[in-house]
Amino acid sequence: MARIVMKFGGTSVADLDRIRNVATRVAREAAAGNEVAVVVSAMAGTTNQLVSWCSSLSPMFDAREYDAVVATGEQVTAGLLAIALQTLGVDARSWMGWQIPIATDGQHGKARINGIAGEALIDRMQSGQIPIVAGFQGLGPDNRVTTLGRGGSDTSAVALAAAIKADRCDIYTDVDGIYTTDPRIVAKARKLAKITYEEMLELASVGAKVLQTRSVELAMKERVRVQVLSSFTDAPGTLVVDEDEIVEQEIVAGIAYSRDEAKVTVRRVPDKPGIAAAIFVPLAEAGINVDMIVQNVAEDGTTDMTFTVGKTDLIHAQTCLEAARAKIGYAEISADSDVAKLSVVGVGMRSHAGVAGTMFKTLADRGINIQVISTSEIKVSVLIGAEYTELAVRALHTAYGLDA
Amino acid sequence: MARIVMKFGGTSVADLDRIRNVATRVAREAAAGNEVAVVVSAMAGTTNQLVSWCSSLSPMFDAREYDAVVATGEQVTAGLLAIALQTLGVDARSWMGWQIPIATDGQHGKARINGIAGEALIDRMQSGQIPIVAGFQGLGPDNRVTTLGRGGSDTSAVALAAAIKADRCDIYTDVDGIYTTDPRIVAKARKLAKITYEEMLELASVGAKVLQTRSVELAMKERVRVQVLSSFTDAPGTLVVDEDEIVEQEIVAGIAYSRDEAKVTVRRVPDKPGIAAAIFVPLAEAGINVDMIVQNVAEDGTTDMTFTVGKTDLIHAQTCLEAARAKIGYAEISADSDVAKLSVVGVGMRSHAGVAGTMFKTLADRGINIQVISTSEIKVSVLIGAEYTELAVRALHTAYGLDA
Repeated sequence: MARIVMKFGGTSVADLDRIRNVATRVAREAAAGNEVAVVVSAMAGTTNQLVSWCSSLSPMFDAREYDAVVATGEQVTAGLLAIALQTLGVDARSWMGWQIPIATDGQHGKARINGIAGEALIDRMQSGQIPIVAGFQGLGPDNRVTTLGRGGSDTSAVALAAAIKADRCDIYTDVDGIYTTDPRIVAKARKLAKITYEEMLELASVGAKVLQTRSVELAMKERVRVQVLSSFTDAPGTLVVDEDEIVEQEIVAGIAYSRDEAKVTVRRVPDKPGIAAAIFVPLAEAGINVDMIVQNVAEDGTTDMTFTVGKTDLIHAQTCLEAARAKIGYAEISADSDVAKLSVVGVGMRSHAGVAGTMFKTLADRGINIQVISTSEIKVSVLIGAEYTELAVRALHTAYGLDA
Repeated sequence: MARIVMKFGGTSVADLDRIRNVATRVAREAAAGNEVAVVVSAMAGTTNQLVSWCSSLSPMFDAREYDAVVATGEQVTAGLLAIALQTLGVDARSWMGWQIPIATDGQHGKARINGIAGEALIDRMQSGQIPIVAGFQGLGPDNRVTTLGRGGSDTSAVALAAAIKADRCDIYTDVDGIYTTDPRIVAKARKLAKITYEEMLELASVGAKVLQTRSVELAMKERVRVQVLSSFTDAPGTLVVDEDEIVEQEIVAGIAYSRDEAKVTVRRVPDKPGIAAAIFVPLAEAGINVDMIVQNVAEDGTTDMTFTVGKTDLIHAQTCLEAARAKIGYAEISADSDVAKLSVVGVGMRSHAGVAGTMFKTLADRGINIQVISTSEIKVSVLIGAEYTELAVRALHTAYGLDA
């Protein structure tokens, strides 16, 4: 017997048939002798509809009222799923964020969970009742409904699992697990049985958007074992766990890519202290996230500075830099949005040399030029021409021995 | 300066344009120096959608979960209207039933309001903020959302008006007031400037469904002045008030009709004590409302019993009586659903004789046969053949001097 949180996303509860399907899965888990709590998202499309109503009335809508409006989507699903479970003879009841309560801070529209009073839920579960918790929402200090930001239901589920001391948090979604790379590009991509929190975070940050990043951070902090699996098949999914749980750790867990970044080069800036700050502080103040940064070796007292920003921020970034031109003192700016970022991720590379070397040699053998390099403890990322993305991902997948 | 509750029904908030229109009206009332609180229904069609989802999952759905689901409709409207008001520069915030709270009993799906904590709302109104209260909902003793039953937002509005000691409760709807009769039948029907609670109740009970009956009962009990008016025009509406407020009381306020009833006659029942109970107790136990009842003069130790039930209950009523045939001991049952009930309503008839006589003579002059008669202190009702409805209503409207 285990205590399990089951979380179902919007596509898993998109209509009444799917809600019935979810009820069947939940009932089966309970019939197997487990204590079960469920977290649900809004029916697919509902949140977008509600958000668009708010935006139509006012592009600068009050986030408190936005929260009151959009939180209804999860409330509807929670009530409907409770009814669907009851028709299967399973005792269930819906819980809104304010009823438990799920206490959050007061940042409406992007609140953070401060604590969940799990005792009442544990009592109900021990008496055989299944709590159906509306995801994505909580209660702020002003006694108003708060929401956690888009995708926040993953975070609700992990926080609930921590609060009720669940053995596992199962995140049901429209993919059946975490793969060594995108199966649409590499037919031989393998589903991972296990992956560490750290690897999952790095993969999420480079575009493998299966789990909301915040939910993985929280799972890592609270040591919640998370399973990603499909609500449409019965296959086992991927467990996201602590490194200790993975006995035979692969050196590289996966290859990720992102075509969402653009490269900016600021040419011939004076090579003097404070020049990086002169460039990047204005960008930070404009709310623009800078990712990879490379500074060339200086020559004739000037240097070039290259970095990447999100494609949607590119024009904004250029405008910022032009406004700061006099202060920075550069010769020209060039930009290239026809790039892709490739990342090799794995906690095993901490203790294994040569991971980066394998990457560079593999790409060189295919004649692929590396424009920018950045590394972290468990990740090596390179920027390449976007047209080489598929070729590079496939070559790296083979080079690291990940092919099925 | 007055303190006013403004209530807007589903058609008044059916889409974003209408919500903007409502915001303009509310802002205008506030700009005129009034303290305003608003009660809103769900956007037209929303509640039906939510109810149908619950029914599809289970015809015998859990009323507690039904309440959690359907209460979201009003929550959405309240948040959206708050946003719309804010874009007009008006301070407003939404309030759910559980936030105020609006305390109800625990009868989910048809809860009754026990009390509303109005102090916080009064404070906000006095500081210039407009509370937008989600109608139709409250908080039960089990800390769960309750709903008041269909049309309950009228009752929410009246209860709120009583709790915050409002000078008036304006019910905005898709008609512009209460008429002396149905204007679709009588072109000369007049809009009443004022009508008493008692008259409104009698009219509502015979089919003039502008206000929910419970809301009028509550208004009468709490002495809340109610105005019925259109959200689509600027014309003044009809005030529903205490008799004392109406100086020049007409004898007859209006003529109502209903084609929703059917007539049942139980023939040749033994004329002995207890026979009425033998017939009507089984019907009451089956949840069937009986309206008009007439017992014929006995002849040869037997009598006939005629009464009316709602048309939708007719088959159910016949089945009931057949099951009780041995106990009642009647010869046969006949039924006629091709009937209409006509009612003349007015508090003035308490002090004026001859109102019933005028009705009977007017109908007789048109050759219209009266099948059943029933009277109350301020109402005379007759059952006639349905085909005479329009003719009879027009004739009575003229006979009582109501033509414009």
